[in-house]
Amino acid sequence: MTRKRLTKKKDSAKKATLRLLNSLGSRKVITQGNAKYMGSFDSSKLAFDYDALLRARSENDVSVCLKLANEYGVPVTTRGAGTSLTGSASPAGGGWVLDVTLMNRIAIKKDKAMAIVQPGAIVSSIQAAAEAEGLFYPPDPSSQKYCTIGGNIACNAGGMRCAKYGVTRDYVLALEGFLPNGEKVSWGGEYRKYATGYNIRDLWIGSEGTLGVVTKAVLKLLPKPEKTWTLVAAFDSDEDALRAVQRLLEEGFHPSILEFLDKRTIYCAEEIAGVRLFKNVSGKPLLLVEFDGPKAALTKLKPKVLNWAKRTSRAYKQAKNDREAEMLWETRRKCSGAMFALGDTKINEDIVVPLENQVRFAKFLDTLVRRSRLPIATFGHAADGNFHVNIMYHRDNDDEMARAKWAVKELMQKIVGLKGTISGEHGIGLAKTPFMKIARNEAEMDAMRAIKKALDPNNILNPGKIFDVYEVWNHTPETVSLPWDKKRPEGRRILPEHLF
Amino acid sequence: MTRKRLTKKKDSAKKATLRLLNSLGSRKVITQGNAKYMGSFDSSKLAFDYDALLRARSENDVSVCLKLANEYGVPVTTRGAGTSLTGSASPAGGGWVLDVTLMNRIAIKKDKAMAIVQPGAIVSSIQAAAEAEGLFYPPDPSSQKYCTIGGNIACNAGGMRCAKYGVTRDYVLALEGFLPNGEKVSWGGEYRKYATGYNIRDLWIGSEGTLGVVTKAVLKLLPKPEKTWTLVAAFDSDEDALRAVQRLLEEGFHPSILEFLDKRTIYCAEEIAGVRLFKNVSGKPLLLVEFDGPKAALTKLKPKVLNWAKRTSRAYKQAKNDREAEMLWETRRKCSGAMFALGDTKINEDIVVPLENQVRFAKFLDTLVRRSRLPIATFGHAADGNFHVNIMYHRDNDDEMARAKWAVKELMQKIVGLKGTISGEHGIGLAKTPFMKIARNEAEMDAMRAIKKALDPNNILNPGKIFDVYEVWNHTPETVSLPWDKKRPEGRRILPEHLF
Repeated sequence: MTRKRLTKKKDSAKKATLRLLNSLGSRKVITQGNAKYMGSFDSSKLAFDYDALLRARSENDVSVCLKLANEYGVPVTTRGAGTSLTGSASPAGGGWVLDVTLMNRIAIKKDKAMAIVQPGAIVSSIQAAAEAEGLFYPPDPSSQKYCTIGGNIACNAGGMRCAKYGVTRDYVLALEGFLPNGEKVSWGGEYRKYATGYNIRDLWIGSEGTLGVVTKAVLKLLPKPEKTWTLVAAFDSDEDALRAVQRLLEEGFHPSILEFLDKRTIYCAEEIAGVRLFKNVSGKPLLLVEFDGPKAALTKLKPKVLNWAKRTSRAYKQAKNDREAEMLWETRRKCSGAMFALGDTKINEDIVVPLENQVRFAKFLDTLVRRSRLPIATFGHAADGNFHVNIMYHRDNDDEMARAKWAVKELMQKIVGLKGTISGEHGIGLAKTPFMKIARNEAEMDAMRAIKKALDPNNILNPGKIFDVYEVWNHTPETVSLPWDKKRPEGRRILPEHLF
Repeated sequence: MTRKRLTKKKDSAKKATLRLLNSLGSRKVITQGNAKYMGSFDSSKLAFDYDALLRARSENDVSVCLKLANEYGVPVTTRGAGTSLTGSASPAGGGWVLDVTLMNRIAIKKDKAMAIVQPGAIVSSIQAAAEAEGLFYPPDPSSQKYCTIGGNIACNAGGMRCAKYGVTRDYVLALEGFLPNGEKVSWGGEYRKYATGYNIRDLWIGSEGTLGVVTKAVLKLLPKPEKTWTLVAAFDSDEDALRAVQRLLEEGFHPSILEFLDKRTIYCAEEIAGVRLFKNVSGKPLLLVEFDGPKAALTKLKPKVLNWAKRTSRAYKQAKNDREAEMLWETRRKCSGAMFALGDTKINEDIVVPLENQVRFAKFLDTLVRRSRLPIATFGHAADGNFHVNIMYHRDNDDEMARAKWAVKELMQKIVGLKGTISGEHGIGLAKTPFMKIARNEAEMDAMRAIKKALDPNNILNPGKIFDVYEVWNHTPETVSLPWDKKRPEGRRILPEHLF
């Protein structure tokens, strides 16, 4: 851009922000200070300069914002809590950040088994409100106590219970909101079925705020399962654990949760966090299994599942009550933070591997750790093949960083080779843009780009995400601590040689 | 169009068909005879003139067809069995019909609980293949023995079990196929989660063949429910029955099927088809309720549900075994054909009404029957508010036809007023195009049209559907009988005066 055009654009943006301020007032439109700073990044902590933070309180605020943005060509990045790990909620294109966290109403309709929510509603608040009526909202991203339903819709969030219950998309009956041009639209209503023209609802879901702004969602709720039952089993090797997963599913069991924790994750949990589940077995990969349903059905199921555990595992243990179940889940909860003893920076990938290739995937992870000489700990949702590969390194160590960069690329290529996909629940944001071209063919990318252009011709909404290749490595993250950041262990550890 | 341009277009179409014939041969490309005639309409029986029927056997056939169509601007209407009631599978724009019924392979992957299917696979065959492995494909449109999965995907088909299990969309994990330009794309894979760019999979689902051609689908299967249990209850009025629906759902029950049969439907079943369920109660609207799940859970549930029936209904009866359940379902199966004693032509609408407005809807139906003086019998899926309103008339009676036309419009306007939607599972096709403008606002229609233009710039795929207003009333339907046509009762009946 020539200096003249740049100056003109800046002038125009200034004028637009002034008009936004005049329209909505300085209580809602914030152009400086800490609140504005906190809107400059998401959980990726990659900060970008931008002009104004709009704390929307109504549909009208959203509409006014989008209409002005379109008129002046100002980028708008919609955000909830900002728990995204990919940079999808950071204002990479500058302009305005449209914060919807104050639009957080929740209404449960018991007879219809629906929740009517605004985008800023916290996911765990929706779950609690549903439970109070004997209902159940299954999606459970690990940031559920902080993240908003708007963000969950934007990236089609998952979680542990997806093993049985599916992802956010499976619970969104309708969306109401605004097109990039500021016009009001609704896709569906307070009903469970519609076949009335194109399904733009599901196109919006997972589009990371690039196609529209959600101001209301109708969520489907289920009856709350009567009981849950938890079992943990230890295996001699990662491959054995993943073979046991295949066996369990093949035999027709349908767990509500089926979490895999690989040997390096177990090292973090046992040796760093100090959580140990078995007296005589240590350092072994685990499967954490939960079943839910009517009490009578669980009673009938238990011996069969225990028989599976007996046949496949080295050791296993069932929770006899809720307190014991809580103890079993502690391993899963603590492993993630413990990893920071191995490196101050974590790349948390969320790749998906088809069931038949999970054992090959475990073997590949060994190779990846050996070749990168980095501690890489993997855990995740084995029933749907969505694993979190956590690549740990030290930010100030250029060599480690270069190896981490190499490892990510190697991982992405392998995943595509294993007929999986590069993101299962986090989305693309900025972080995975360099890998879209290996995950998607030209025709697919062209179709997506054509849709973006058709619905957002001025490229107002969240520009720079999904399509443009962005190198996160060139960008130093902020060091500020966020409420959902895991507590970091004291001291540094080195992964023992036998785990390389 | 001027005569010169029209001639040029015809010449070009001729040339295109010749090239298609040369590429794929006369066994696949059929330009005359009965097979071609049968491709000129769907279950709406509105026939259109077109140039060639392509019986595709491979992905290559599909790709060749689309590439040529794009080059020459030839419309392509993809079709399966042609059970669509809306005209969505009829070649309204002429050109070519792409018949995918020969691409009908089904593979069940038990460990992954998935079915990998080609678009021509019959839905009941997929269900049977899944059941043979102890698995379950829930969507059950009434044409399931004939209709193809491709067609089900095109209109996002539903059925009775949607009450608990949702629609076709909820079971499609991935689609593979071709863009209108003939390029191969895949949306998802053999895994349960992906967040890798825009979700064009769900945009294709329900787009009635206007955005792409599906050549493979990955379907999610569930564990087969252990048992089902059926109950029927009769109510003093349609309103009472629908109030009881609300009560049942409010109390947290989650039936697998919850069918409502209004008083006029019951007249057809009892007086015309001769099916009677209660000795001392006749002419009363019914609810047919099915629960499924583990045997032990059902045993616990039964007394509670029976208590609901006792509190709300005039009479009720449970099936003690599968044979008895079959007998209860006979009413539902026979009512639809019996209606033809009241008129030789049926308009089968599939509107959706939110739960809280169902009682108002029943009252409106009385008014509609009274004012139109037509027999209008309504039954359908009460749990999701998706009702089939069957408007019967005699095709040769101009006055009846005019009243039927009036009744449809009146119905559509009322439904939108009741915050429902004009189609729940059939789609728009041609038949509902006049009502899109009342169901959708300008911005929503513009967004849909923009997507159509972006993905199919030459308007090759199924032109004339969804967006262009088409008056089916001006088009005389074919009289040929189709395999799934209901057996028509002998003789004519007139709806008794007390039902007007």
